[in-house]
Amino acid sequence: MQKCDGEIFFVGLGLMEKHITAEAAEALRAADKIYVEGYTSFYYPDVYTSLKNLGIPEEKIKNVSRRDLEDNSGEELLRHASMGNKVALATVGDPFIATTHLALRLRFERYGCRVRYMPSVNIFSYSISKTGLFSYKFGESATVVYPRDGILSTYPYLVLEENLKRGLHTFFFLDIDEKFGPLNAAEAVKLLLRMESEERRGAFTVGTDVIIVERASWPDERIILTSAGKAKEKRLNPPHSLIVPGKLHFMEKESIEVFRT
Amino acid sequence: MQKCDGEIFFVGLGLMEKHITAEAAEALRAADKIYVEGYTSFYYPDVYTSLKNLGIPEEKIKNVSRRDLEDNSGEELLRHASMGNKVALATVGDPFIATTHLALRLRFERYGCRVRYMPSVNIFSYSISKTGLFSYKFGESATVVYPRDGILSTYPYLVLEENLKRGLHTFFFLDIDEKFGPLNAAEAVKLLLRMESEERRGAFTVGTDVIIVERASWPDERIILTSAGKAKEKRLNPPHSLIVPGKLHFMEKESIEVFRT
Repeated sequence: MQKCDGEIFFVGLGLMEKHITAEAAEALRAADKIYVEGYTSFYYPDVYTSLKNLGIPEEKIKNVSRRDLEDNSGEELLRHASMGNKVALATVGDPFIATTHLALRLRFERYGCRVRYMPSVNIFSYSISKTGLFSYKFGESATVVYPRDGILSTYPYLVLEENLKRGLHTFFFLDIDEKFGPLNAAEAVKLLLRMESEERRGAFTVGTDVIIVERASWPDERIILTSAGKAKEKRLNPPHSLIVPGKLHFMEKESIEVFRT
Repeated sequence: MQKCDGEIFFVGLGLMEKHITAEAAEALRAADKIYVEGYTSFYYPDVYTSLKNLGIPEEKIKNVSRRDLEDNSGEELLRHASMGNKVALATVGDPFIATTHLALRLRFERYGCRVRYMPSVNIFSYSISKTGLFSYKFGESATVVYPRDGILSTYPYLVLEENLKRGLHTFFFLDIDEKFGPLNAAEAVKLLLRMESEERRGAFTVGTDVIIVERASWPDERIILTSAGKAKEKRLNPPHSLIVPGKLHFMEKESIEVFRT
């Protein structure tokens, strides 16, 4: 591999078309090739339509899979950039919040590519702002994942317990599996209840309040505050994220109670 | 006060002009009146220029102070919205991350105004992504504030200590005072060292590594990784935010070491 003469833009698209920033639009138009990564999240209406609406010709756009970016370490992107091209990797949300693109960035930098980062709206900040919870009262985050080979990691539960001890809110990213798709919040709540029955520390019971952020910023967005017991029976439409509130300030309380169902 | 027939948009502008989203630009153009709040943060190049560049006539724009929004609870915005107008409150960053606008939002909602939230790039997410630290490894955040009447709150230090016990990173927002301006990161480091000398728990010493995010996303942005002992002697140009890393993954380590000075 020759030394890299080109540029690689990590471009955040936000959660829906109208979240695209002026900076991102400019970078996407300037790029010689745009790689679209669709496995870490979902977009409204869809990335291809949004890029088309920015006036970007379809032949400049190519889909990349997890295999391309992780197993093959973005080899094709690096090859293009090495030839002096401007290459964009377009990701839903922000490229470095809750995604795994840091490894790629480090690799591209090691080869001497000029790497630029274009931030955008991400699900973590969006959910905090939308619910009205205070951002500084969030503790460590965790991802609730599908059981693998029947084994359920109780790590998210342990993070929750630690946060609750300090009165802090917990934000849960929900797994996206290439085969099973995005983890439904109702299923995630069931998994957390299973973790409770394994760990038995009383941090997450049927009476625990949860906030479900469904299809954040999309036209059919719903924010739901309910008990875990009720949440697990709900019919919900992913993608979701999940918040377990800690100790609430009276303003936070007023703000989230409007979402109670 | 009559019932509110209008709409109030809480519009995030991001950290610099090119962070303005398509959604925000649309809302600002549609608004009958735009109130610009300049006391919670700073903008590049400046909000007025950026609004002008969006084609918004100057007579639609009005500056609001902390007094207008907090002491007077946004009375003027409410009055305009009550007459059926579209009113925008334009804030740097995201309107509900690290700002105090939730009280306003709740008040407007109580009066029956239609309230909408337009998210944008905020300093918290931006700093995480830019440094390459993992977002889920951040614990509780805190704000380092100027001593008031000679009294120094050690709360940020205690938050840091708790986070470090769990290996988590700590993000510090730095105070912005109407009289003294934005708190310089070098001063913030000195204040944290004073907290150490009061609390004596060894969480923040001259050997502690800090990451200073200076003028985030502006043309003269700098990210600096250095020891607290060196940081307090540095000549720095605010606005700043400050991160104290916890336990580092090897990728995080590689990512931040390029900023070592």
